[in-house]
Amino acid sequence: MPVKIVPSTPSAYQYPLLIKQLLHTPLATAPEQEISYQGRLRYTYREFNARLGQFANTLAALGVAPGQTVAMMDWDSHRYLECFFAVPMMGAILQTVNVRLSAEQILYTLNHAEAEVVLVNSEFLPLLASIAPRLTRVRSFVLIADGAPPAESPIEFAGEYEALLAAAGSRYDFPDFDENAQATVFYTTGTTGDPKGVYFSHRQLVLHTMSLAASLGTAPGQGRFHREDVYMPITPMFHVHAWGFPYLATMLGVRQVYPGKYMPETLLRLIREEKVTYSHCVPTIMQMLLTHPTSQGMEFTGWKVLIGGSALTPALALTAMKRGIDLCTGYGMSETCPVLTLANLNSGDMRQSAEDQALLRAKTGRPMMLVDLRVVDPDMAPLPPDGKSTGEVVVRTPWLTQGYLKATDASEGLWDGGYLHTQDIGYIDARGFLKITDRIKDVIKTAGEWTSSLALEDVVGKHEAVAEVAVIGLPDEKWGERPLALVVLKPEFVGQLSEHALRNHAARLIEETGTSRHGVLLQVQFVEALARTSVGKINKRAMREARLKS
Amino acid sequence: MPVKIVPSTPSAYQYPLLIKQLLHTPLATAPEQEISYQGRLRYTYREFNARLGQFANTLAALGVAPGQTVAMMDWDSHRYLECFFAVPMMGAILQTVNVRLSAEQILYTLNHAEAEVVLVNSEFLPLLASIAPRLTRVRSFVLIADGAPPAESPIEFAGEYEALLAAAGSRYDFPDFDENAQATVFYTTGTTGDPKGVYFSHRQLVLHTMSLAASLGTAPGQGRFHREDVYMPITPMFHVHAWGFPYLATMLGVRQVYPGKYMPETLLRLIREEKVTYSHCVPTIMQMLLTHPTSQGMEFTGWKVLIGGSALTPALALTAMKRGIDLCTGYGMSETCPVLTLANLNSGDMRQSAEDQALLRAKTGRPMMLVDLRVVDPDMAPLPPDGKSTGEVVVRTPWLTQGYLKATDASEGLWDGGYLHTQDIGYIDARGFLKITDRIKDVIKTAGEWTSSLALEDVVGKHEAVAEVAVIGLPDEKWGERPLALVVLKPEFVGQLSEHALRNHAARLIEETGTSRHGVLLQVQFVEALARTSVGKINKRAMREARLKS
Repeated sequence: MPVKIVPSTPSAYQYPLLIKQLLHTPLATAPEQEISYQGRLRYTYREFNARLGQFANTLAALGVAPGQTVAMMDWDSHRYLECFFAVPMMGAILQTVNVRLSAEQILYTLNHAEAEVVLVNSEFLPLLASIAPRLTRVRSFVLIADGAPPAESPIEFAGEYEALLAAAGSRYDFPDFDENAQATVFYTTGTTGDPKGVYFSHRQLVLHTMSLAASLGTAPGQGRFHREDVYMPITPMFHVHAWGFPYLATMLGVRQVYPGKYMPETLLRLIREEKVTYSHCVPTIMQMLLTHPTSQGMEFTGWKVLIGGSALTPALALTAMKRGIDLCTGYGMSETCPVLTLANLNSGDMRQSAEDQALLRAKTGRPMMLVDLRVVDPDMAPLPPDGKSTGEVVVRTPWLTQGYLKATDASEGLWDGGYLHTQDIGYIDARGFLKITDRIKDVIKTAGEWTSSLALEDVVGKHEAVAEVAVIGLPDEKWGERPLALVVLKPEFVGQLSEHALRNHAARLIEETGTSRHGVLLQVQFVEALARTSVGKINKRAMREARLKS
Repeated sequence: MPVKIVPSTPSAYQYPLLIKQLLHTPLATAPEQEISYQGRLRYTYREFNARLGQFANTLAALGVAPGQTVAMMDWDSHRYLECFFAVPMMGAILQTVNVRLSAEQILYTLNHAEAEVVLVNSEFLPLLASIAPRLTRVRSFVLIADGAPPAESPIEFAGEYEALLAAAGSRYDFPDFDENAQATVFYTTGTTGDPKGVYFSHRQLVLHTMSLAASLGTAPGQGRFHREDVYMPITPMFHVHAWGFPYLATMLGVRQVYPGKYMPETLLRLIREEKVTYSHCVPTIMQMLLTHPTSQGMEFTGWKVLIGGSALTPALALTAMKRGIDLCTGYGMSETCPVLTLANLNSGDMRQSAEDQALLRAKTGRPMMLVDLRVVDPDMAPLPPDGKSTGEVVVRTPWLTQGYLKATDASEGLWDGGYLHTQDIGYIDARGFLKITDRIKDVIKTAGEWTSSLALEDVVGKHEAVAEVAVIGLPDEKWGERPLALVVLKPEFVGQLSEHALRNHAARLIEETGTSRHGVLLQVQFVEALARTSVGKINKRAMREARLKS
C-alpha cells in the first residue's frame, strides 16, 4: 500500500509504547497514593518509583543485561509489582514462575526460558534446592525473606531482596528501546506434553492496559474500575500478569493491596480492613471465601469482583450478589494476555431481577476495545450473532502472544489462518455477548458442521439403561468425523439391550432435535468403564487414542 | 539496545493501530445504536458502517488512491463523521478545512496540502468558486446538498454526496497498512505568516482515542464519559478532530448527535430534545448559550461539558454550574491532537462549596494516561510541582504532530530538545494540576528566569497615573532580556510624572513581591497609545519589532 508515512522532524520524539510510560500519570497525579503488602508494609508511589531504580541497579550489578531473563518465584507482593515494572523497564524479560507446578515442570520452564537470575521466596527454597543443580543458565539467586538473612540452603545467594535494594542507588535511567521488545514470559500447561511458553511485548502490555482502562472505565456503572477504587488481586501474579490488573491499577494511581499467599483469613481481613473495592478471581476462590467460617456475617457491599478462568454459574453469582458482592465475568486465556471480553451490565440490566441479572453476570461478556472476536465455522467464515450459530472462537487484538516459545508447529497451529484460535466453542447473541459452550477438542466435526459432544451425550444419556456415556469423534474418510458413544450400561440392563437398539433409539431422538445427520452417523459401543485421568476427569483423549491404535 | 524482539510465527496477525480497528467493539456491541444529524436524519451504526463502504467506493471511483488528500468543507454532520473514518481507512488523508478562514487562506491550505478531491457544503460554494481557478491539484469536487441537485455554480461537480453514495456498493475491504500512515491534516494560524499544517497518523489517533477513553472513563465521577452518554460536539470537526471526541464516541458505541452549523437555537433544541449528556466547547460558546434568550429558564441538569480552547473563568464555571451544567476543563492545542490534560474533580473536590469547585473546574487539569508533561526552565530542566515554579510547558505523548507540513525550521523549533514546545507558560501544583499563566512570547526571560509580563503589568498598572500598560522583553546582552513597560498615562497626569519616577515606584513594588531582579532591570517608556491588532488585541509583537528596528 503506497500510503504516506507521517514525516518526523529529526528532533521529534517518536514515543514508544513501553511499560515505563504507564508511570507518567500516577507519578504526576498520585505520588502519595499507597501500595501495601498484607497491610503490614506500606509505601507511596513515589517510593515505589525509587525502589524500581534500586531494584534495577541491583539487577544490573548482578550482570542482568537487556534481553536476559529474570525469573520470579513469589506470592502476590509489592516485590512482584516491582518485578512487573523494573525488569522489563531495563529491557530484560520477566519470567513469572507458576509455583504450583511440579518441581520437574518448574525446572523445565526455567531452562526453556533460559532464566539467568532467579528471585525466590524462602518458602520455595526446598523446591528450588531440589532442581538447582540441573538449572542450565541460572547465574544468580536472590532470596526474598523480608530482610532476614538467608536460611540454611545449599543455594548460594547474591543477597536478600530488601538488603540488596537498601544498598543500591535509586537513580536509574530506564532507556528507550523498541516497543516490540519482549517484556514477559510464562508457561501454560495442557493435559499432555511439556508446558508451552507464551510471551508478551511492552507494546502488547501497554495496549492491554489501555484497553482494560478504556473498557472497564467507560462501563455504564456495574463493575466499572475507576481512580478511587482500592485494588487487591486474587488471581496470582504468576498467572497471566494477574489478568493485567497490576499494570492497570498502577497506571490509574489507585491504592493497591497485595495479599501474599492466598489464605482465606488474610484475604477476608484485607478486604475488610483495607476497604478493598476491586478484585478478580476464579469461581472456586469466590466459593471458598463465601463458605469460609470467617466470612459468615461479613459485609461485602462495595466489593466489585471480576470472575474468570472458568465458567461462573448463575447460582454462585446469585449467592455472591446476596452477600453484597458486585460481580461479573471476563474471558481470556494465557495466550491472550489475557482479557478479551467483559460482561459489565448496563443500567437496563440492573433494573432486572437478581435472578435474571445472575444469568447475565455469568455470561462470558462482550469484546473489549480493539478486540476483533469472531465465531467461525471450520472454513473460518464468520457466523452470525444470532444466539445459536456455534463455532470456534477466534480473535485478533494487539496483545496476543505471537507464538509459543521455541515451538514452531504449535505456534502455526495457534495462528492458523491469521486468527488466534482459542480452542473454545461458542456463539454470540444479538447484544454481542459471547457464550462459551465447549472446548473444541470435545466437539464432533461432521461434514463441516460442529456439534457439541455434550449435547449428544445428553440425548444418549436419556435412555433408562445408560449409567454413563461419553461421545467422542473418530476420523471418517467421508464425513470428517463420526460420533461414537461409549456407554456404560446400568448392571440390570447388561445383556438386555443391544448396541444397535440403543443407537436407533438415540438416532430417533437426535433426528427430532433437528441434527439428523448425527443421528444417522452415530455409533454406539458398550464399555465396562469410561477412561479417566488421575484426578477422575473423563479422559476423551485416551478414549480416542485407544480407538485410533486398534 | 540489544533487547529481544518478540518472535512472530509467520501466520500471526501483527495488529496495526488503524482507525478501522476502533469500529470492532461498537459494531459487535451496539450495531443498532443511533447517529443523528440535527435530529432530522437518523441511522444506526450498522448503516453508518455500510455508508463507509459506499463512500469509499465513491471516492475510489473518483480515482482517490492511498496517500492522496481529500478535503472536507462542511459543518458538523454525519457526513463529516463518515469522512473521519472512510477517508483514512482507505489509506487516504483527510484535510479538515477551517471554513472560517479567509478565502485566500483556504486556497493556501488546499494547495499546500495538495488536496485532490474537495467535498463542499453548498453554503460554501461562493467562497469555493472564488478560489477554484487557482487550486493547483484538485481533480474532483463533490457537492454536499442533502440530495438536492447541484446549484448554479461555475464548479463542475462529480455529483452530490447522497446521490453518489446511493449509487455505490457498500462492500469495501478496507486494507491493512502501516499504522504510521498519515490520516489527517489541518492548518493552524498564528498572528503572522502562512497557516501551518499539522498532521496525525492512524496510530496517533487510535492512541489519543484510547487515552481519552481510559482517562475520562476512569474519572471518579465528575465529567466522566461512559457508554450510556449521548454525545454532541460543539467544537467544530474541522478544528483538531473536534478534540478527538467523534472517534471516542464511535468507539464507545454511544448515541451521537451532529448539530450542523452552530446556531444557538439549534444547539439548545438538540440538547433538550435529544437529551444530550456530553459536549465540549470553548468558553465563548458556553457564555453565548447561557445568555441566549432561548436558554432562559431551560433545564441543563445532566449535561456534562468539557471546556477548552481558552481559559475558563471561575465566574463562568459558577454561572454554568448554577444552571445545572457539570463542566470542567481540558487543555491541548492543534499540535497535540489535541488533549493533554483533564480537570475532572474527585469525590473530595465534589464535597467543596460551589465557589471552591469553580476554581478547580477552571484549572487546566492533570495529564491524561501516557502523557509526559513537564514545566521546564530555559535549559529544559524540569521544575518542581510546587504550585509556583513557572516555566514552559513541554510534552511527550504518542499523539503529537511530528512537525509542521513542509516547514523544516518551524518543525525543529516545535521539537527543540526532543519535547514538543507548547509555547505556554505555567506551573504544576502538588496534586498535578497544571495552571497556564501566560504565552511564552509574552514572557520576559531574564538571566535564566522567566516572569510573566502580565504580572509586571499588574504592578505597574497599580500606579494611579497609569491608564494602560504593556510590558515587553527586549534583548539585552548581559541579561538575555530586560523588561520594558510601555505606559499610556491618564490625561491629567501627562507631564506630572517622569518615566524615572514611575520606574522607581514600580521597582519598589516588584522588590516587595520578591522578584527583585526585574525591579532593577525594569525600564519605563511613556507612549501615546499601545499598538493593537486589527481586532483590537494588544500587539506586543509589533511593539517589540518597532523597538528592535529603532
